[in-house]
Amino acid sequence: MESLAADIIDILGTISFAISGVITATKKRMDIFGILIIATVTSVGGGTLRDLLIGKSPVTWILNTSFVYLIFIATVVAIIFRKQLRYVRKSLFLFDTIGIALYTITGVQMGLLIGLAPVICIALGTITACFGGVLRDILCTEIPVIFRKEIYASACIVGGGMFVLLDHFGVNTVINSVISGSLVIVVRTLAVIFKLQLPSIYKKEELV
Amino acid sequence: MESLAADIIDILGTISFAISGVITATKKRMDIFGILIIATVTSVGGGTLRDLLIGKSPVTWILNTSFVYLIFIATVVAIIFRKQLRYVRKSLFLFDTIGIALYTITGVQMGLLIGLAPVICIALGTITACFGGVLRDILCTEIPVIFRKEIYASACIVGGGMFVLLDHFGVNTVINSVISGSLVIVVRTLAVIFKLQLPSIYKKEELV
Amino acid sequence: MESLAADIIDILGTISFAISGVITATKKRMDIFGILIIATVTSVGGGTLRDLLIGKSPVTWILNTSFVYLIFIATVVAIIFRKQLRYVRKSLFLFDTIGIALYTITGVQMGLLIGLAPVICIALGTITACFGGVLRDILCTEIPVIFRKEIYASACIVGGGMFVLLDHFGVNTVINSVISGSLVIVVRTLAVIFKLQLPSIYKKEELV
Repeated sequence: MESLAADIIDILGTISFAISGVITATKKRMDIFGILIIATVTSVGGGTLRDLLIGKSPVTWILNTSFVYLIFIATVVAIIFRKQLRYVRKSLFLFDTIGIALYTITGVQMGLLIGLAPVICIALGTITACFGGVLRDILCTEIPVIFRKEIYASACIVGGGMFVLLDHFGVNTVINSVISGSLVIVVRTLAVIFKLQLPSIYKKEELV
Repeated sequence: MESLAADIIDILGTISFAISGVITATKKRMDIFGILIIATVTSVGGGTLRDLLIGKSPVTWILNTSFVYLIFIATVVAIIFRKQLRYVRKSLFLFDTIGIALYTITGVQMGLLIGLAPVICIALGTITACFGGVLRDILCTEIPVIFRKEIYASACIVGGGMFVLLDHFGVNTVINSVISGSLVIVVRTLAVIFKLQLPSIYKKEELV
Repeated sequence: MESLAADIIDILGTISFAISGVITATKKRMDIFGILIIATVTSVGGGTLRDLLIGKSPVTWILNTSFVYLIFIATVVAIIFRKQLRYVRKSLFLFDTIGIALYTITGVQMGLLIGLAPVICIALGTITACFGGVLRDILCTEIPVIFRKEIYASACIVGGGMFVLLDHFGVNTVINSVISGSLVIVVRTLAVIFKLQLPSIYKKEELV
């Protein structure tokens, strides 16, 4: 039951990341192949970088074709209905936020399992959640959006930190995942509702 | 004899990729060191990414200095004769096309050897053939050309798919390589001659 | 004693790379999180790529949290005093130059230890020293500065070559490190003082 819930969220997260890839790639007028690559990189890029850094090989998606097919289908559907994507923006935001929450927890857990230091585990969680988007932006020659204006990675860092803390105090992994994952979602959602940003280090005249 | 032919094609492919790196890097007015790096990345980048993804370490070129020297010589010669490169454009196209055909087959074969799923093998072949060029364009801060307008990766996917199919039916590897490699070359050549592109998903007014 | 000196230089190099990341990232008006990522990538990027290429896993920084904390502190201090950074430009240049000298020697040594060919060892040293900066520039969507105008990588290649040569003749590693590292520093410093560049392959009218 828990496993089914996790699978569904995993699927929703993957779909959401793929769609965000489609949106960025179509803005750059890429062809179908390019869009497919960007969607795939957005979905699996963060986990791939994490796997490379910790030496897990082959990387996860190489061994799991279901996600490759899922990304393919999500991309094709998103291309067909791309004009309508604006009407489901709120659902997309929800999926995306659930997606980064899940990816964060997965990354932190993998670090803890192989006994890495807390700060490194939090970094791995954040990398898993955020670097698919970073690679997406780099392949589209844009400065990664999460480096500039969103409380996005910060939500992952907060949630990842909570997971490490609760794990340290022996909290059950499932309960911990729910609490820490929810924290990511809450922080990110509040930030978007109240238009919160990280405190700016620039003076007004520097930003013109 | 077959091995000699494969070696010659491998060498021609490497030279061709290195030259395409020189052409892109000189357009960006890079210095000699920069040009050399771009030429190297174009030549070995796809295979390196494939090796990292499947966990082959160290990566291939680290253990094979002949290709490093070959790239170095090709780069120096291409820099010296760069004004004349336009007169050999057709030969370059031929080498490049043979190169991606060979790289595709190599990548697919490595995937099959370690028992990966067909769709992943095709992806590895395409990555081997195409991601050197993607990295070249990213290092030059250009949106990768194969994401935008060429039947390039598509030829690799078709040829890679054919290899997996024939392999499934037990066709001899050498014969299979010749057939599938030729298919890559034919698809790519026809696409360029008849100016074929992937079907556009954009309306005319979106492309202005 | 020697180890202490090496540690101090290592720390100064890391700080210097982190600061160069802060300078580039603030020019792009990144937020605090983005600046921190760029500083980290600049510091650990070259070593990470080297580790991936030779198959050392997990990569070095994953197992050594002191550098993560050091980068964090250096970044925060550099952000606070970023207006004053211009007054310490000469010290920064010194740290940076010592940093690339040290990183070069580390990379070459790791290659020699696992028995790689001389030319590959020199390449690994240069990658260790220079690719943090390349990744920094790519993440900021700039063409990497070392591909365009500085005797930077060339100094690493010369020093790395010297290390391989002296090692071949059985020179003690500590003495070799001092000689070859100093050579990197001297070449780089002379190049900046006398404004040396690699010989240009472009005619004047091409550079307008």
